[in-house]
Amino acid sequence: MSDSQRNIRLLIAYDGTDFSGWQRQQKDRSVQGELEKALEKLHKTYVPLTGSGRTDAGVHATGQVANFYTSIARMEPHRFIPALNSLLPRDVRVLEASEASLDFHARFDAKSRTYRYHCVCGRSAFPHELRYALQLWRRPDLTRLNGYARALIGEIDCSTFANPQDPSESRYRHISLAHFFIQGDTLIFEITANAFLWKMVRSILGTLLFYEERKLPLEEFKNLILSKDRRLAGPTAPPQGLFLHKIDYYRG
Amino acid sequence: MSDSQRNIRLLIAYDGTDFSGWQRQQKDRSVQGELEKALEKLHKTYVPLTGSGRTDAGVHATGQVANFYTSIARMEPHRFIPALNSLLPRDVRVLEASEASLDFHARFDAKSRTYRYHCVCGRSAFPHELRYALQLWRRPDLTRLNGYARALIGEIDCSTFANPQDPSESRYRHISLAHFFIQGDTLIFEITANAFLWKMVRSILGTLLFYEERKLPLEEFKNLILSKDRRLAGPTAPPQGLFLHKIDYYRG
Repeated sequence: MSDSQRNIRLLIAYDGTDFSGWQRQQKDRSVQGELEKALEKLHKTYVPLTGSGRTDAGVHATGQVANFYTSIARMEPHRFIPALNSLLPRDVRVLEASEASLDFHARFDAKSRTYRYHCVCGRSAFPHELRYALQLWRRPDLTRLNGYARALIGEIDCSTFANPQDPSESRYRHISLAHFFIQGDTLIFEITANAFLWKMVRSILGTLLFYEERKLPLEEFKNLILSKDRRLAGPTAPPQGLFLHKIDYYRG
Repeated sequence: MSDSQRNIRLLIAYDGTDFSGWQRQQKDRSVQGELEKALEKLHKTYVPLTGSGRTDAGVHATGQVANFYTSIARMEPHRFIPALNSLLPRDVRVLEASEASLDFHARFDAKSRTYRYHCVCGRSAFPHELRYALQLWRRPDLTRLNGYARALIGEIDCSTFANPQDPSESRYRHISLAHFFIQGDTLIFEITANAFLWKMVRSILGTLLFYEERKLPLEEFKNLILSKDRRLAGPTAPPQGLFLHKIDYYRG
């Protein structure tokens, strides 16, 4: 980048329903692709966008973070919000835009990622909820769920919740928060880690609900984590209930 | 109908985004049309469905009520819920099904209709909210809005909020509830009347926000109602924030 460039940090929300995921694809509609198309229209040249990480097809975000270098000199950072939103489809929105230090990197500087998974419990879900939540036909035992969830906290080998083909060098992740809470008729699972393996949150959530429904003892869940055997875990929960909620950074 | 027929009452929710409205159309996708298609598959013959009233294109429902006559004798009423939902697209859901008296009529027996209009206030809305709410860039004055809203309560000539082509014989409607309240960052306008004119709720809401933004005196709003002149009212609010919330009946 030249000296005249500025580094702009964005806070982004999207409805993942109609996307193949965050990552730019040759053919399929992606969130990164739509944002880069808008950046290209604004700059009259291709401008790459760096996200904090990928989200899968169908997964939503209320707190994705990304950065790009702009050669536009005379524009207040917050002016990028309406400028980009006017060029973006309705299912992607820029919520905030700010000037970052030139070496800020949305992915490498991220300290932790927080996801939330929404479930509608014990009643028929409305269609406008089904798009953004998993329907549970029962009201799960919150105490039991939170008992299992506490067992996830710490530096753990997450192989039990990893895809067998996961190419990550290490499957150790530091999980700093994992709990369930209720908002109205919605059960929310919140989990924070330094990073996640592919489909890990959905695999964990599916397993927690599977164990809870069968009232399995906490020790059995702890043994499951230690087993590192994906085949013993529960089903992977569908993507529509999952939101990338927040990215925390080491600095500003 | 024959003696062997039963009258089934449904509680229905839908995401109005991809519908031309409630009413069956020759070509366009309608909620009534999708439900009648499901009823036809279940009965192997056309079964008409009577709704409590129409909703416009893009308007949602969490509490629409409808009834139909079925010749299916040996089926618990609640069994119609999964039977119909398995035949319905994801954006229409049957929430409840019950046996009604043979002369129950979802439209003629309705005592009142309640609508809710959702606005996201004072911040960028998330894409998953924009589908179901109007974005207001400011936080409106709740006290002022509720002052105007109270002036709507009673037996009033609603011509100010009617489409000039509205074919209704009388434009008098009995409004029994009209108020705003806040839930989190969402401003909700709730209004109950014996019946509504075409686009009346959206016209009222658009006008209330228009008056509030300009801090116009309450007397001016009262005079507007008396004027019966649609041209003096504010803009019609868009459909995506509007939900048919509840139908109350004279009996059962």
